[in-house]
Amino acid sequence: MDRRHFCRLSAAGLIGPYFSLPSWITPSLRQAQEVNGQRLNQRMNALSAFGANAEGGIDRVAFSDANIQALDWISQLLEEVGFASSTDFAGNLIARKPGSISELPPIMVGSHIDSVPGGGNFDGQVGSMSAIEVAASLADGFHTTRHPLEVVIFSNEEGGKTGSRAMAGEVEDFELDIMTASGFSIRDGIRRLGGNPDRLTEVRRSAGSIEAFLELHIEQGAVLDADEIDVGIVEGIVGIMRWNVVVEGRTNHAGTTPMDRRADAMVGAAQFINLVHTTARRMSGKQVATVGKLEAEPGAPNVIPGRVAMTLEIRDLTMAGIERVYDEIHSNLFRIETETDTSFSIQRFYTSRAAPTAPRIREIIETSAQRLGLSTHRMPSGAGHDAQSIALFAPVGMIFVPSISGISHAPEENTEPQDIVNGANVLLQTLLELDER
Amino acid sequence: MDRRHFCRLSAAGLIGPYFSLPSWITPSLRQAQEVNGQRLNQRMNALSAFGANAEGGIDRVAFSDANIQALDWISQLLEEVGFASSTDFAGNLIARKPGSISELPPIMVGSHIDSVPGGGNFDGQVGSMSAIEVAASLADGFHTTRHPLEVVIFSNEEGGKTGSRAMAGEVEDFELDIMTASGFSIRDGIRRLGGNPDRLTEVRRSAGSIEAFLELHIEQGAVLDADEIDVGIVEGIVGIMRWNVVVEGRTNHAGTTPMDRRADAMVGAAQFINLVHTTARRMSGKQVATVGKLEAEPGAPNVIPGRVAMTLEIRDLTMAGIERVYDEIHSNLFRIETETDTSFSIQRFYTSRAAPTAPRIREIIETSAQRLGLSTHRMPSGAGHDAQSIALFAPVGMIFVPSISGISHAPEENTEPQDIVNGANVLLQTLLELDER
Repeated sequence: MDRRHFCRLSAAGLIGPYFSLPSWITPSLRQAQEVNGQRLNQRMNALSAFGANAEGGIDRVAFSDANIQALDWISQLLEEVGFASSTDFAGNLIARKPGSISELPPIMVGSHIDSVPGGGNFDGQVGSMSAIEVAASLADGFHTTRHPLEVVIFSNEEGGKTGSRAMAGEVEDFELDIMTASGFSIRDGIRRLGGNPDRLTEVRRSAGSIEAFLELHIEQGAVLDADEIDVGIVEGIVGIMRWNVVVEGRTNHAGTTPMDRRADAMVGAAQFINLVHTTARRMSGKQVATVGKLEAEPGAPNVIPGRVAMTLEIRDLTMAGIERVYDEIHSNLFRIETETDTSFSIQRFYTSRAAPTAPRIREIIETSAQRLGLSTHRMPSGAGHDAQSIALFAPVGMIFVPSISGISHAPEENTEPQDIVNGANVLLQTLLELDER
Repeated sequence: MDRRHFCRLSAAGLIGPYFSLPSWITPSLRQAQEVNGQRLNQRMNALSAFGANAEGGIDRVAFSDANIQALDWISQLLEEVGFASSTDFAGNLIARKPGSISELPPIMVGSHIDSVPGGGNFDGQVGSMSAIEVAASLADGFHTTRHPLEVVIFSNEEGGKTGSRAMAGEVEDFELDIMTASGFSIRDGIRRLGGNPDRLTEVRRSAGSIEAFLELHIEQGAVLDADEIDVGIVEGIVGIMRWNVVVEGRTNHAGTTPMDRRADAMVGAAQFINLVHTTARRMSGKQVATVGKLEAEPGAPNVIPGRVAMTLEIRDLTMAGIERVYDEIHSNLFRIETETDTSFSIQRFYTSRAAPTAPRIREIIETSAQRLGLSTHRMPSGAGHDAQSIALFAPVGMIFVPSISGISHAPEENTEPQDIVNGANVLLQTLLELDER
């Protein structure tokens, strides 16, 4: 069967290998070109039982009993289709199947199944169950890839991407003592999953050790849903910088201080917020900038605020892009300070490096989607993902499917069953194409 | 010295009744033209011992032991200069001295001596001790006014102007149960001062029952200090309106929501704050408008705020002025809502009526100050005062002296001794001029 499949592929001639099937191909072979959508969505549904809460969402935080039970179930599903499953020292569930050419590095595919407290049923889960479905579909079609395959369910994505960052050698010792929503520290949590926090360094993968990593994920934004696009081709996971911004003015009586003698920190802050918004909006590119938190002191209706503390966050596909936006904002601060008689101080407190996806894999995703008749849109991932960690040592590709109304991290998080199937099919085709090249 | 000073003034040829005294007037009478500045400042100092705290300020909140002890001391000072002192049912200390024409209504002069917790030594106290000094100076000069005189130390100014509002019949029964910083309710506090909260209505004064009320006070703003002006002539105590302003947008992921698809309540709020500031500043008049309090939800660096709650406060010398500013702001809301994809709801939660001073008394204060060689500035009082309550049933006049750097309600509150003397002299001259007319 595998052989015939091979013939079909070479008959296609183009690359197209997988699509221009001659009519004599047997049904069993053709199955491999598409996933079993019904099974995929049934399993999505089955997964949602682990940690289900009253609101229709899930509490399946990393290291919880629900997390462990779901991983056991998934491990079993993968064993059933010929994968040897184990847990690495970081608590990642890794299921391996050999390829036909043993010396090739593996293609890795996966995501996570842990949730935020009160989370939804799609974040991480769409990518995890689709990876399993791809493995199952390949098995259904008796298709052996050239590269070994690894399906990975990363540990503690929501609580700090522990599993994927361990593979990149990025987890620092102090992190292990952080308490998680499960009530266990990350250190104890890793042990609960069957890992060994004392041997995390052994989990580290070197550059070139894997052929590619593919992750399917819900968008967690509203772009695809609003524009009715089937599949997002992720250009990269954006870098993030966050700053604490403090505006100092003069606290004064709101009744006795004339308008032209005020140093109102709130007015300074207001002009800053406007500046941030208009700058990020006006500049070309896909950068975003947000003031999400603001505290005005002393905070009474009849007192002119003397101090406002805010946060500024800028995200972009490149760190240089972030700095460009910041510099533009910063160059306008003096004007605000002068106009409002306030002074600004800004301190960066958080940086997360941008992780571009591999251009070659973007192309393959795009071609695969288009061949399936799906509409596509190239876009940044504004949220962080395991793929971001893997990008530190391997080429990664990321596929987005629409989130209804962009809602995520809430029980109302939702993605249409067909969109999940679409995403899984693109994942399958991309994997096969990568495998063939 | 006093005599020579007097001669200089009469030589000036300008003056009102008190200054164009014929040269045969006895020195004892002439002394009345100026207060005893040294005694006044000594007594300011003595008063500061009642409730003195470690920070150099005072904790002499209404109804506290320190408040009661200070009132006893003041009562004694007034008795010494021929005033009959008593406490009315509202806890106001009232000291009376008959005039030469018994059928004339009294001229009332006074302020308060209660402080905010951790207050300063000048708010209320300058006006109270100056009223006492005016009484003492008149006694020194054996000067009997035509009108009866009443020196009043109002109860609980800082906690709701209870004493002065009781005279205007404005205190509502529910207020009596409000707990004060003294640890006593207003009801129990009034009893502690020697009042009777069950008979508050009997304290009410009718229109025409007093000739005029004069209050000297520190500015509690920085206008006089900054502009080096000796005396402020208060045009009125501003009216105040306060609103709760809620901006509704859409809470969203700060990474996954492109700039042009946001409904950022923080950006809507920022535009509102700017609008408020520029509107109040641009319009002619002395109105002030302030956003002093702001809460953004959910309030995380990586989440676009879906809701911002703020306060808006507008003050002006007339209620129509306040409404004009509000209307101007309100007429621009639609533009902000459209631009930021947010919606605003605004609810008024507080109104304090404007209390203009009597134009005739303003003139007298101005003339008196100018004759004393003092520079003057007409200005609103942005803060509330007892004079505001009395204005509801009688003509009032208010005199401001500079607050150093405009600081008030803090231990750093300060006014130069000479400025206090200047204010007391203007108070004296204004009282005498009113008495003569």
